[in-house]
Order: sequence, then C-alpha cells, then structure tokens
Amino acid sequence: MASTFRAFDHRKYVPVEPVPLTQRQWPTRTLTHAPIWTSVDLRDGNQALLEPMSVEQKKRLWALLVKVGLKEIEVGFPAASQHDYDFVRWLIEQDQIPEDVHIQVLVQAREHLIERTFAALEGVKRAIVHVYNSTSTVQRERVFEQDREGIIAIAEQGARWVQEYAARYPDTQWTFQYSPESFTSTELDFSVAICEAVMAVWQPTPDKPCILNLPATVEVGPVNHFADQIEYFITHLKNRDSAIISLHTHNDRGGAAAAAELGLLAGADRVEGTLLGNGERTGNMDIVTLAMNLYSQGIDPQLDLSNPDEIVQVCTECTGLPVHPRHPWIGELVYTAFSGSHQDAIRKCLQKQRDDEAWQVAYLPIDPKDLGRDYQAVIRVNSQSGKGGMAFLLERDFGISLPRWMTLELAPHVQKASEQVSGELSSQAIRDILLETFMCAAPVTLKGYRLDRDDAECLSVTLRHGQESVTLQGQGNGAISAFMDAWQQYTGQRVNVVDYGEHALGEGSDAVAIAFVQLNVDGTRISGMAEDGDTVSASLKALLSALNRAGAGQTLTGAVTKEMLQA
Amino acid sequence: MASTFRAFDHRKYVPVEPVPLTQRQWPTRTLTHAPIWTSVDLRDGNQALLEPMSVEQKKRLWALLVKVGLKEIEVGFPAASQHDYDFVRWLIEQDQIPEDVHIQVLVQAREHLIERTFAALEGVKRAIVHVYNSTSTVQRERVFEQDREGIIAIAEQGARWVQEYAARYPDTQWTFQYSPESFTSTELDFSVAICEAVMAVWQPTPDKPCILNLPATVEVGPVNHFADQIEYFITHLKNRDSAIISLHTHNDRGGAAAAAELGLLAGADRVEGTLLGNGERTGNMDIVTLAMNLYSQGIDPQLDLSNPDEIVQVCTECTGLPVHPRHPWIGELVYTAFSGSHQDAIRKCLQKQRDDEAWQVAYLPIDPKDLGRDYQAVIRVNSQSGKGGMAFLLERDFGISLPRWMTLELAPHVQKASEQVSGELSSQAIRDILLETFMCAAPVTLKGYRLDRDDAECLSVTLRHGQESVTLQGQGNGAISAFMDAWQQYTGQRVNVVDYGEHALGEGSDAVAIAFVQLNVDGTRISGMAEDGDTVSASLKALLSALNRAGAGQTLTGAVTKEMLQA
Repeated sequence: MASTFRAFDHRKYVPVEPVPLTQRQWPTRTLTHAPIWTSVDLRDGNQALLEPMSVEQKKRLWALLVKVGLKEIEVGFPAASQHDYDFVRWLIEQDQIPEDVHIQVLVQAREHLIERTFAALEGVKRAIVHVYNSTSTVQRERVFEQDREGIIAIAEQGARWVQEYAARYPDTQWTFQYSPESFTSTELDFSVAICEAVMAVWQPTPDKPCILNLPATVEVGPVNHFADQIEYFITHLKNRDSAIISLHTHNDRGGAAAAAELGLLAGADRVEGTLLGNGERTGNMDIVTLAMNLYSQGIDPQLDLSNPDEIVQVCTECTGLPVHPRHPWIGELVYTAFSGSHQDAIRKCLQKQRDDEAWQVAYLPIDPKDLGRDYQAVIRVNSQSGKGGMAFLLERDFGISLPRWMTLELAPHVQKASEQVSGELSSQAIRDILLETFMCAAPVTLKGYRLDRDDAECLSVTLRHGQESVTLQGQGNGAISAFMDAWQQYTGQRVNVVDYGEHALGEGSDAVAIAFVQLNVDGTRISGMAEDGDTVSASLKALLSALNRAGAGQTLTGAVTKEMLQA
Repeated sequence: MASTFRAFDHRKYVPVEPVPLTQRQWPTRTLTHAPIWTSVDLRDGNQALLEPMSVEQKKRLWALLVKVGLKEIEVGFPAASQHDYDFVRWLIEQDQIPEDVHIQVLVQAREHLIERTFAALEGVKRAIVHVYNSTSTVQRERVFEQDREGIIAIAEQGARWVQEYAARYPDTQWTFQYSPESFTSTELDFSVAICEAVMAVWQPTPDKPCILNLPATVEVGPVNHFADQIEYFITHLKNRDSAIISLHTHNDRGGAAAAAELGLLAGADRVEGTLLGNGERTGNMDIVTLAMNLYSQGIDPQLDLSNPDEIVQVCTECTGLPVHPRHPWIGELVYTAFSGSHQDAIRKCLQKQRDDEAWQVAYLPIDPKDLGRDYQAVIRVNSQSGKGGMAFLLERDFGISLPRWMTLELAPHVQKASEQVSGELSSQAIRDILLETFMCAAPVTLKGYRLDRDDAECLSVTLRHGQESVTLQGQGNGAISAFMDAWQQYTGQRVNVVDYGEHALGEGSDAVAIAFVQLNVDGTRISGMAEDGDTVSASLKALLSALNRAGAGQTLTGAVTKEMLQA
C-alpha cells in the first residue's frame, strides 16, 4: 500500500479480525429475562449535546429515569465538571435517591480526579464508581504512546486509588466498575489481561462482584463480531462469577440495540444505554428499543414504558434532539398502515383477536394500546393522483396545512366516511369531517384570558361551562404551557402537550389563525383544533377542543364540586 | 391463559420459535463482497408516505438511484395504481432505463393484475416481475382462511400466470421473482415448500435463475434468529443454485441493517432496501447504512455514496421525512467530538495518519472527507455552566439564534481562537469570529434583484464584481432556489443548498433579518451568513457569503470570460 488513496476508496479500511472462538455458544441461546439496565443519559448522553443540560433539565430527566424504573443511573463525571459535581451533591444532600437506586459516576484513572470524585459522593448510601482507561491498539500507539504493560499499570493504579479512597468512606456501600475504553478495537487477550489485573487489585467475590463494562466506544464491526468478542471475553476471564459483565454499545453502524441483544446472548448481565438513544456521534444504545424488543418476545422488560409520550417529551426537551417519525416502537408513523391489503389484513385480525389470547395481528408486532397509541389506517382520498391525499386537498382548497400527526388522526375518520359513501370524498366533505371531529367548542368554552410576561408567562383564563364561570391561573414558558399548568392545578388531571402547530389562514393583518394540538390526557392521546383572529385564543381554544373531547365538562364539574365542598 | 391481560403486559406476546439448525454456519463467515442491491424506494418507500410522490419527485428519485449506481430498481405496483402505471410507461417510452439497469414491478398473484402488469411493461428490454402472496400462519388462518395447500395453490397459479403472460412478450428479457410475504412469521418448512412449488412452475436453471425474496415484512425477532431462518431456508431448498436469494428487511426492532448483514452471511445474494430507510412503519433496510458498513470493512460497496448531501436532499424532498441528526454515517452530529479527551485523541491520530496507510483514527470509524464532510471538534466556551456554549452566549447577548449545523461549523474556529488565548472567550469575541468567518461580502456583492411570482418564483439578480456588473436570471420554488438556479445556469458550477435558516434580530417592523445558509459547492460543504433589513436580501447575501468563501470571484470571472468569448 504505497500510493495515496483516491476519493471514496474502500481500500483505506481494514476489516475487524475474526474472533478465534472454537465452540461458539451465543447463537444457540435465547433470552429469557431482562438485563440490569443502566442509564447513561445524564453522562454520555449529556456530554454529546451541543448545549449540555441545565440543572433544571437534569432534574427533570433524573425524575423520569427513576419513574421509568432504572435502578442504576450514571449521573455524571463530577471530577471533570463542576456542574456534574453540584448535581451529585444535590442528589445526595436533598435525599433524591430512592433506596433501590444506585447512582454511578465516571472518572479517569488519575488520582486527583478520583479524590474529587469521592468528595462529590460523600454521604451517599450506595454508589458505583466507574473508572476507565483507553486500551485499543491505536490509542496505545498513537495517543498514549505506551506499551501493554504501561496501559495495564495505569489501570491497576487507578483501581488501587479507587479502592484506597473508597476505604476513607466506610459508611457507603461501594461498587467498583472498570471499563477498558474502546474495547471493540482492543486485542481480546489484552482486554482479558487488563480486566484480570484490575480484578486482582479489587479482589471481588461472587457475593460482592465488581462490574466490568465492555464498551463499543465506536461500533467498528458487525453485530455478530461484537457478540463473539463478548463470548471470548467471558469464556476466557478468570473468576468470571465475581464480575458483572456490562455492555455499552454505540450506534455507528446502526447496530447498537442488536449488538447489545447478541452480547446478552453471549453471557453479559447488564446493558448501559440511554432513553431514545442520545449519545456521542450516532448515539448510545436505545434502552426503549431494546426493552421493547424483549417485551415483544414475552419477556418482562422490568421497566415501565407504558407512557412513551412522556419519555419523548422529557427527552426531546432535555436534549433538543428530535425523534424520527419512524423511530422503532414510538415514532409517529410506526402504527400506520397505508396499503389496502395491509389494512384489510389488520382489520380481519383485530376482529378475531380475543382479549385473553396471545397477540396475533398481521403488520402490528404489538398492540399499539400498550404504549397509549392507536393503530391508524391511512387512506389516500384519490389514489389515482400523485398528490391526492386529504392533507393536499385541505391545503389546496382551504389553505389548511395539517401537521403530519393531525393527518394521521384524521385518516380513520375520513376512511370510515369514504367506506360509507363507497366513493371519493370531496375536499369540502373532508373539511367538514375535520371540523366536526376536532373542533369541539362545547361544553367548556373560553370566555377570556390575561397574559403577563415576567420571568415566566402568567396566565389567568376564564372558562364558561353551562351557567358557571371559573377562572384558573397558571405559569409556563408560554401561553400553552401556562394553560396546561392552570388546568392541572385546578382539576388535578394529568395532561401533557404531545404536539402543537399553528398557522395563519390567508394573508394580511386580518388573517385568521388555525391551531392544532395533541394532548396526552391520563395516558390517552387526543387532538383538537380551533380558529380565531387572535393567535393566543386560537391555541387556547384548540386546547379546550381536545379537553372537551376528553370529557372536560365532567372534569371541570368534578373540580368545581370539590372546591365547593372544601370551601 | 384465560384472563384478560393488564395494560403493558409482556405475557400477551409469544416469542419466535428457535430455528432447528444443527450445523449453523453463518456465525463463522465474514463478508467479502457487496450483495446485489435492489432499491424499493419508488414502491415500498413511496407506498408508506402520507403524501405519495408526485411524478416530478419520482423522476428525481429515479435519477438519483441510477446515479448512485443501483442496477435493480422496483418502480411500482402498476396494476394497483394508475400513477405507477404511467411512470413505468414513461420510463419505457422515454427510454430512461440504462442498459445495465433492471426495473422491477410488484404484483399480487391474481390474473387481471398480472395481465395489466405486463401491459405496463410492454416494450421494455429487460424487467423483473415480482409476484407475491402472504404465507404466514396468522395470514393463512385469520385473513385468507386457507390451509397450506390453498396458499400454495395461489402461489403456483400466480407463477403460471406470470409465465404465460411473459411468453406473450418474447422480445423482453424477463426475470421472475417470488416472495412468500411475511416470511419471518411463516413456518420454515412451509416457506421452503411454497418456494419449491413456484420453482417447479418456473423451472429456473443456474444460468437463468429466478429470484426468491424472503421478507421480514415485520421484523418479529432478534437479528440472529433472522439469519437462522435464512440459513435454514437456503440449506433446505432444492436447486438452490437456480435461485438468487434476496432479503427484504424492515426495521421494527431497529435491526433492519444488521439482520440483512447477517442474512448475507447466511448465504443470501441480494438485498432490497431504500436510501436512508424510508418505508412502511419503522422503514425498510437503509441501503446507505449497510453499504457504508461494508465500505468501512474495506469492501467495495459497488455504489457511489461519495455525495450523501445530494442523497439527503433528494430523499428528504421526495419523502417529506427528516434525517435524524444522529443517523448512521450521514447525520449532522456523526463526525463531532465534544469531550476534550476524544478531541485530544483524534488530534494526535490525525497528526500521525499518513495518506498512504490504512485509516487509524480513534473515534472516527471512517475519514469524514470520504463523504464530503469534516470532523468537527466542538468545544463549550465555558464548561462550568450548564448553558455555557457558544450558541447560548450569542443568543443571550446578541439575539443571534444559530442553527445547529451553523454551531457545528463555528465550533472549530472558536476552538482555535480559544487555544490561542488559552482561556475563556467573551461573547463579543465569539460574535467577531462568527462574522469574520461567515459574513463574506466581497468580492462579489449584491447590487439589486427583482422577484416575480407566477407559477414559479422568477428572479433577476444583479451582482457586482469589482468594476463589472452582471445580471443573472433563474427560477425556483422560492428566492433561494431561483438564485441557485441563476448561479448554476450562468457559471455552470454545481451548487446545492444543504441547509438554511433565517430569523429577525430584535422586534418591530424595523428589525433586521439574519440569514444562515450551508451550500454544497462541487462536493464540499461551505456556509455563509448575512444581515439585512430586507429578508430576501439577507438570504441572497448569505448565499453570496458562502459563494464568496468558495471562490465566487474566480467562478464569476471565468463565466464572464466564457460569455465574452462566445459572444
């Protein structure tokens, strides 16, 4: 190889080396239970953001992780970031860590960093201290310029420091974790050797094991190659029963979840990842995807993912990253069917599906209702035209620009109507269906509102319900969140905004605004829309439309009665 | 199982059955060459869109597929859609199909549909006719209410019709393809039996094989289970050498690309998928991901993916679907590094990387330049604060809201400056770097423009370069595309808009607009920005900033000279 490579030249890359396994076992196995899950959202995930999370965002994401049921949560790199340090102190001093949750912190194998890490953890009841150094060939040769012995010495010294500093805090129940960073690009015998050297320092036992975390820091090979690496490591490690084997995969080749699944077959016990897969470059292993993969195989995921709307909402607000419409299990297009033959098959299967038997429905790997979602049959009003859809007709003839999620909501209603007329629906008919279904101005109506902008948006809103008038107050980043705050405070009902869109109908200063909103009310998605000359009124009325569809009248009556009884 | 399931109850799901393989071979193999690629963008991809593609979009996507190097392209379901029928006729009658490209069309096993399919193909030199029926247990029992024999009879009859109608068009070189639809949910012995029944009709030979396509219509199990299914099928099929074994995976569990890769190890020859993975529900197998996975292992992908910006642009415009910032290989965050230790390691590796040796750089699985991208080291100006990034400071102190891609562009310039001052940069200093780098008003400047809106936006724009003035004309959907059209027509330079953003600075009618644009100029990304009281001027000036940075002066001089010589 003496000449310079041309552009887009595959010869520049060397394939991964086959793993010398003689009696490969993992392909013969089947998973039967969930791994130990570890969230690295607040560390690896946060570290990969253009704008790291604020303290408020970290608290919000922490609360979600605990709620979902994560029992091990890496909360930061306190020695490298004052912000992470402060967050760890807040968790400990404000007693935020439930009895069954371990927090975990990351640290390099350097003494002053380890010292500061333990200072950050002072007073914690139990914690995992996660120490690492880089072990791959390229890191040894090109970054650290050390031979194998030198790299092992760094790891051993780090392990000793961790042990020594831990001894100074005997009231804490410590677990030690070591990662040979860039494990997937490290020679396997060396990975085994360095982990055994660390274990020789820590002297773990089956009753008090350490954690050995094997990162695909970069996903460099096929998923079966990763599984081979894990099986090789596990079958060659001395005292394997004194170590919890952990996986930490990244998604460079799109295989993070599959690699983790195969790594578990190869004998690993634990998986590190993030909700929805945020993380360096292509992201970390997506815990939601892998957990739902297990769930759909009849395995208890040991996580409560029944409200993915909340997961999506908190994660997108904390990371600033979108969720793709085709994201496995939770994307907005995942439970749709467009082709007539798919729709027909689904309809027949759903008719025959009994409540007490195993799920058997073509094209729907799980019951969408498990995730608070609905199956959506999407018809195209006129399949002969390239642009014959409902959304196109509404836009062309009425200037109504439906958000994609609203189009999905509308589709089954249009379908039902088109089946009844057994023919093509006019754009006027589609508009009528849209308004009749989603513009629901009764029984609760908007009487008036006042908005004050200070640090937050403060909203005072007066609603009318029959003869009653009631004034609610709330705060938020904007009028919508302030209204939701007011509604929740007053009624006690759990309501979240899943999606929102608004645009002007027509041009000029007298244009009418049309607003669309999708709420999650007590775990069920429900949408509404409204028009008004005032943009704020349009959005508040759209919220009320959705709430009316969800039974706002009763909710409000209940709250008013409760208030009267208390008064 | 007599009682109703509770909400979010894993017991409702039955796991896939292990495949009875006694001497599993696929885990012992390594891929050495690319499969036959087949694009289903124009069929499966198009079918899954809320708004199917227009004729213009289909033509555009077709041109891209041919350009990228796809040799087999499924172009539609002509018997089910007049629109697809017309598109196939256009391809044939306008002689759009290169000599080495096969078009493929899908059809159900029903005579009138097969008849019409062949009518659509009349006059084509070569084509693949792809016939299918559903074979899974649930489809047999709940949808078609037929036993195995009945389902096989449908397939055989379909195969016979295909053969008979093909015989009526002897001037065409026909290839026949059969799919046992929902293969992954079909008993393996039955899949083998039905495919053998179809082969018994078609009588393929090693010299004139048929295609057997095995779809993961729904991805129902782990990727290794899919590979087992493929290996079982291939090792049990009679006359395997008279069939090309094809895979068609979907991404329900996030494993479409990995499953296809393992399926190839199991002996398959061909893979169906779409560029960037559009398709039903969670999407089809992403051809770009799998091809780049092979590329990064030193395998010639047999596709030219060196301009992914163009792929992203055409696909997103045709499908209306976004590409996630962390999409493998091509997402905007994929070649970023945030942590100091990652950046340090990359820097050291890049210094040592020679042009004539294999790629060995930590944290970068390939050289980003292969895809026309740059590695971006992103620093946070003040790591002590949760919101201390460049973008935050620019927003807080100057109201400048940088798009994410612009933040990534700015980062290395800020980093370089911060290394020189060895300390924290003020927000003023960051703003200066932004403007100095990206606001490039010379040598080509905007003198004036005229916009006419008719069917399209028609732009006449006058540019000044030194003493010269030149007026360019172009058309497009908006001012920006019209300008790019004018520039390309005049200079012959290939320029595309990768990204664009604009917002008002301050409030009121005298607010200034600030515009950001990222272009791809001859395969290289380059960004620019500008401010102006007029929003159109701001965007045109931003385009000129980027073009000036890319050497617009020289380009324009070249074009003017050429014009003078021709005159």
